[in-house]
Parts: sequence; structure tokens; C-alpha cells
Amino acid sequence: MKPVNQTRRTLLTTTSSAIGLASLGAISSLTPAAKALASTQAEKSGPSLPPYASWKDADSLIIHSANTMETKRTAFGSGIITPLNRLFIRNNISPPSEDIMADPDAWQLQVEGVKDPITLSVAQLKNLGVTTVAMVLQCSGNGRAYFPSNPSGTQWTVGAAGCVVFTGVPVKTLLEHVGGIDAAAKYMTGTGGEPIPEGLDPNTIQVERSVPLEAIEDAILAWEINGQPLPLAHGGPLRLVVPGYTGVNNVKYIKRLAFTTEQSAANIQQSGYRMAPLGEKGAPEYASVWTMPVKSWITHPGEPDSRLQAGSLQIQGLAMGGTSDVTEIEVSTDGGKNWQSASFIGPDLGPYAWRQFVLPVTLNAGTYTLVSRAKNKAGDIQPADRMENNRGYLNNSWADHALTITVA
Amino acid sequence: MKPVNQTRRTLLTTTSSAIGLASLGAISSLTPAAKALASTQAEKSGPSLPPYASWKDADSLIIHSANTMETKRTAFGSGIITPLNRLFIRNNISPPSEDIMADPDAWQLQVEGVKDPITLSVAQLKNLGVTTVAMVLQCSGNGRAYFPSNPSGTQWTVGAAGCVVFTGVPVKTLLEHVGGIDAAAKYMTGTGGEPIPEGLDPNTIQVERSVPLEAIEDAILAWEINGQPLPLAHGGPLRLVVPGYTGVNNVKYIKRLAFTTEQSAANIQQSGYRMAPLGEKGAPEYASVWTMPVKSWITHPGEPDSRLQAGSLQIQGLAMGGTSDVTEIEVSTDGGKNWQSASFIGPDLGPYAWRQFVLPVTLNAGTYTLVSRAKNKAGDIQPADRMENNRGYLNNSWADHALTITVA
Repeated sequence: MKPVNQTRRTLLTTTSSAIGLASLGAISSLTPAAKALASTQAEKSGPSLPPYASWKDADSLIIHSANTMETKRTAFGSGIITPLNRLFIRNNISPPSEDIMADPDAWQLQVEGVKDPITLSVAQLKNLGVTTVAMVLQCSGNGRAYFPSNPSGTQWTVGAAGCVVFTGVPVKTLLEHVGGIDAAAKYMTGTGGEPIPEGLDPNTIQVERSVPLEAIEDAILAWEINGQPLPLAHGGPLRLVVPGYTGVNNVKYIKRLAFTTEQSAANIQQSGYRMAPLGEKGAPEYASVWTMPVKSWITHPGEPDSRLQAGSLQIQGLAMGGTSDVTEIEVSTDGGKNWQSASFIGPDLGPYAWRQFVLPVTLNAGTYTLVSRAKNKAGDIQPADRMENNRGYLNNSWADHALTITVA
Repeated sequence: MKPVNQTRRTLLTTTSSAIGLASLGAISSLTPAAKALASTQAEKSGPSLPPYASWKDADSLIIHSANTMETKRTAFGSGIITPLNRLFIRNNISPPSEDIMADPDAWQLQVEGVKDPITLSVAQLKNLGVTTVAMVLQCSGNGRAYFPSNPSGTQWTVGAAGCVVFTGVPVKTLLEHVGGIDAAAKYMTGTGGEPIPEGLDPNTIQVERSVPLEAIEDAILAWEINGQPLPLAHGGPLRLVVPGYTGVNNVKYIKRLAFTTEQSAANIQQSGYRMAPLGEKGAPEYASVWTMPVKSWITHPGEPDSRLQAGSLQIQGLAMGGTSDVTEIEVSTDGGKNWQSASFIGPDLGPYAWRQFVLPVTLNAGTYTLVSRAKNKAGDIQPADRMENNRGYLNNSWADHALTITVA
């Protein structure tokens, strides 16, 4: 394992560990002193749920700010689909007013860069076609907390990710309706509906992202998530969903879908979400953060630094292929020296979804560093090392995602 | 179509239609008079959520009683997995106290009729093994409201069903741990943990169900549903899950799992849930309500008797194979005279799950009777007629589940 910023990681995991215990209902078995500690740390864990996300399960989340909250490592569960009340939230800027949800079917989408430009309501889109896609939704910066370079931005550990089912109309179906895209177009550009304060150059804060045209293949315009109307917190009334691409490319409150010859001029496209080398600022010359790489992590047993009883244990975790089916998963209990094949459990929801895995083990007393390593159909293998970059994007290092447990 | 009790059905659908409109947020577009009507009918819709199910989404449910509530036809969504807050509830008797959820891992299960009888806690079961299964959970009496014979019992329409993901230990794994079952055993018998009032013969109300040994193959003991700890409302801390079998066979709060030579002596097994002919009482000579047959129904567009705009529409619905993969789905807009093949959407979650389907149509002004007919891998075709029986079990008649809409 590469050396990492152990002090910072220990601090992070210790805090979340005590809070995790409390949230799991195990607090009743703690000593009064431990209870007080857990309670104090819970209070110190940051802001509470903002009004637009008040329906979330606070106990399952690490709340970084009103616009950033992640699922706790132990709160993913084993049901493949992440329950909506435990799903992470990451808004680049504050969401629009809840008023836009009063009549979601009335929300308007401008379609440009096509043969027959048109403005359609959500109600009209619903009559054009419908499909569903099961997919991992993951923030570009998930795993940033493990970068030793201390990149700025939300210090996500593993939980800025979830596997969800979106329902909507395929972009391809919409394109049939509008006569196809402009011949010169090279990008699909989505514009978010967040209000821009008067007097401000929209490019400075506008959430507008461009992705390559090949993303059209499986993209949908979604009005439902996990069988429920898409809430404001996750981009309702309408969200551009681009399976296999990081969260930011799945534009919330989409008000304009354009097929363009150039990438968006917005800062979030030009300099934001770029794989700039350490010490360099983001710029168009660096690769844009688009597709997600193969990745996995252990979720069970225990929080980091948990103390468990010797004997039989089921090591569990999540594995995703990125844009290609995850096909193999290995687990190591000694930090990556020796590996064993683990088994996937439950149904396969397709190339963009994650799968859950289990490895039954018998552990004697000792300290174990649990890591997992996934492989996808395209042959990509999850690497030991992260891809260093200035803002801490796309961390899929298996070593960084290690979970240390002590068995007594 | 067979004649059905149209008066009763109209009454049912009219009430749910007005309430449905309100719950869908469309109430803002209603006239004041219509609003008042919707509001009054909502108040008349029955009891409110009981404390153990207070976290449910009341707007998505028809609440029949504190122990019986079903998902509204329009509230299934298209996300394959039914959100927990919209999932039906059916308890044969009142659930145990919420106290049993204070420390779910401490719940005890007696295992009998095996080589090495044992009592295990949920914590111990969790260390034995883990898997997940996606499956339709459906009350035996779902569709009872459509029986013209007016059978007693909850008047379920389509909504005493959901597709969920359970997580737990395979019964087969448990059996390896206890040396296998007794050679003479013919049934797997689960006993629910509901408290029996003192002085009462347990057989009169005990929820204890026996299923054939072949059910062991895919059965699990579950502590999680849809990625969350199994709540009391759905049988937590521990539930026997028997994929392909109706709800009652999936024993909640299971305290004893026994492999027995005889079926349970409890009334719920001996006389309850039997396919007795019309006018006859349930008795052991009649088939027990065990596996579910192939079934489907339309969920969209609209509530029954909705008025829609002419043009393109996406007819949507749910189709399940019972114990064998659903392989084909046909839709008719004229009450079953002419049929068209519809398309399944989203991933296939296996033989016990349902799939969602869509048929894009263009409808002119008129009244349409929408029906759907499913076929499974085993070759079973959903029939036009229900299987008549005294208590209204296992209704899979496509005609009974018709949805009538008016296009203007």
C-alpha cells in the first residue's frame, strides 16, 4: 500500500465510527461515557439536513454541508438499489426553489441543435416514450478524502455514490421526434435550471455540462427515481441522466438540451472537472471528468477500526464496472498481499449498475486490512494507486479504500 | 369479458380516482368544488396510518385498516423495486410491540426438525451467510375486490403486491450448519412471533404456515428489505422469505423454523388460505394457497375512468411469472378482442421479480378498456377468468384487472 495521509484518514474514520455506532442502535450497549462521546461527536458532525432534503435519513448520512451529504459506509445495505432516503446529495450551487415542484409536468425543456428545435413540457416528454436504467450515480470527487495531496472540495470518503433506477424518455426517442441532431454537433450539452443572480456572468456559476455524442446511446431525460417522482434534491422535475458518467454530467433541473459543436463555455466545463496535474489549475487542455472507472469497496463488517468477535464473518462490499459490466471481484484481508475470489450476490442490473459481493471468512484474533479489487468486461482492473490530480477526482485506488478491523 | 359486479367496482374506482388526483399534486388545477370533493373523499378513505407504519407515504396508499393497506394503482412507479414507503401491509393479527426492534440482532430463532436443533440469534445468522433475492411479495387475496361472489376479507384491488429485494441467509446454508433436516420431514413450518393472548388456544390465531420442502431451494431468513433493516411493519427483526409463494407463507417475526412431517395444526393452515369452492368453508381437503400464478395489470395512464387527451400515450404496467420468468406480455385496448405485444423495460431481476412493460399507442377520442396478458417461461398464460373460490384468493384474471379510460 502506498503511504497515505494517515493522520487525516484516522481523524475522519474515528469520528464517523462513533456516530455510526450510535445510528446503528448499538448505542444502548455503550457505557455512559461512550454514549456521551458518541452524542457529542454526532452534534459536531456538521449541519443538519436542509429543508429540501429534510425527508432523508440523517442517521445514514455524513452531512458535510447543506449541498453535500454522503451515505455512511455501513449504511449502503445489501439491496442493490440505494434507498432514496440514504442516497448522497451534491449540488454545485443551491437548488432552485421548491416552487418548481408544484406542477412538475409543466416544467419546460428547450431542445436545440436539432433539425426541428422545440420546447416540450415534462407531460409531453412522458407521452413520447419511457424506459428505465439501473445505474451508479457517483460524484466525480468520491474518495477525495483519501488523496494525500489534500485537494480542496468536499472530503468525500466512499459515500458520494449510490445505485439507483431512473425512469424517463430515451434521448434517442426525443431525437427521432425532432428530426435528428445538427450534422456539425459534437457534444450533448445540458443546462441546469438553477437561478443565476442578476448581474452575474452566467458562465461563472451556471451548471452546464457537455458530454461526447456517444453518450446519447443510453442517456435519458428522467422524471422518476427508484419508482418515485424525482425530488428536487435529486434534480426534479427533470434530470439529464447519462449512465456511466460522473454525477455532474447528469444535469439537474435541466432546462435546455442542446447538441453543440463546442463544449459549454461555462467555467464548470472549461476549468472545472478537469484532470489537471498536481499544482495545476483546471483548463481545457486537460481531460474532462466524464466516464467512471472500475471501482469497489468493502462495506461490511463494521466501521473502520471496528472491533469484532473472532469466528465466521461475511465480508461484503460493492463493485462497479464503470461503463462495462463488472465481472470479477477479489478480496484481501491482508491489505493486498493475498487475494481470494468473492461471489456476487443478487441479480445483475446491467453494465451501469453495481453489484454486491460477499466472501465468507473465518478470522482469528488480529488486525485485518480489508480491500477489494474489481475487474470489468472490458478488462480494466481496479488499480492499487489513485490517478493523482489536482482536485481529487475519480479515485478508484483499492488501497485508498481499505477498511481496517480488529478481531478479538 | 365475463360480467362482473360493476356497481361495486365503479364505487371503488370512483373513490380512489378522486383521491388519486389529489395525491398526484394535480389538485391545484381542480375547481374549488372538485377540490372540496377530493378532500372530503380523502377523509372518508378510512383510517390513517397506524404508529408502526407512520413512516409510510399515506398519499400512495389505500388504507383499509390498521393492519391492511395497499398501494394505489397509479403509485407503483416504473422503478421495478417498490419503494418501501409505498409497499402494502397486511398483518393477519396485530404486530408485536415495537420493543422487539430495540435490538434486532438479539432476536432468537429456534430451529427444529433437523439433526442438530439449535437456537440462533439474528447476529449469529448474519455470520452464517448472506444473499439477496428480488421478488414479488403479494397478498393471497390481492384482486379480491373483483370477485362477483363478494368474498369476505380485505377488498384488495391491485395494490396488495410489490416487488422488493430481501437480504438474508439462505435456509440451505442454515441447514448445512445444523446437519440437515429430519428424514421424515415433508414441510417447512414457520411460526410467527406475535404474542398470543393468555387463555386463548394458540391454534386459533397463531400465524404458523407450512410449505412443501421444495420451497427450501430459494428460501431465506431475511433481516433487510430494499437495502434497509427490515422494519416491524414488514416482519422485522426476522422474516421467513419464500420466493414465489403468497405473502402469508412469508412468516413475519419468525421465532421458530421447523421441518415437520405434518402441516401446522393452526387454523391459518388447516382451514385458512384454502381454495375452497364457492359456498364451502376452508378445509385440509382443498389446496393450500402456496405459489402465485402468472399475472399482470396496467398501471398507467391514469386512474380507472380517467379522462385523457387524444394523441400519443405510453400504456404501462407490471407483469410477473409467479415461480417462472415472465417472458411475454400483450396489451389490448378493446377489452381483449385484439392484442399487441408490449415491450419489457429495465433489467430482469429474475424469476420471482416482476417486470415493467410499455406499449406506445396513439389513441383517438373514445373509451378504451385496457387489459394485459402475461405468459411465463413454463408456458402458463394469464387467463381471462379468475379461479372461483370462496375466499377470493389468487385472482389473476386479466379481464378483472381491466382499466377503463376515456380519451377526449
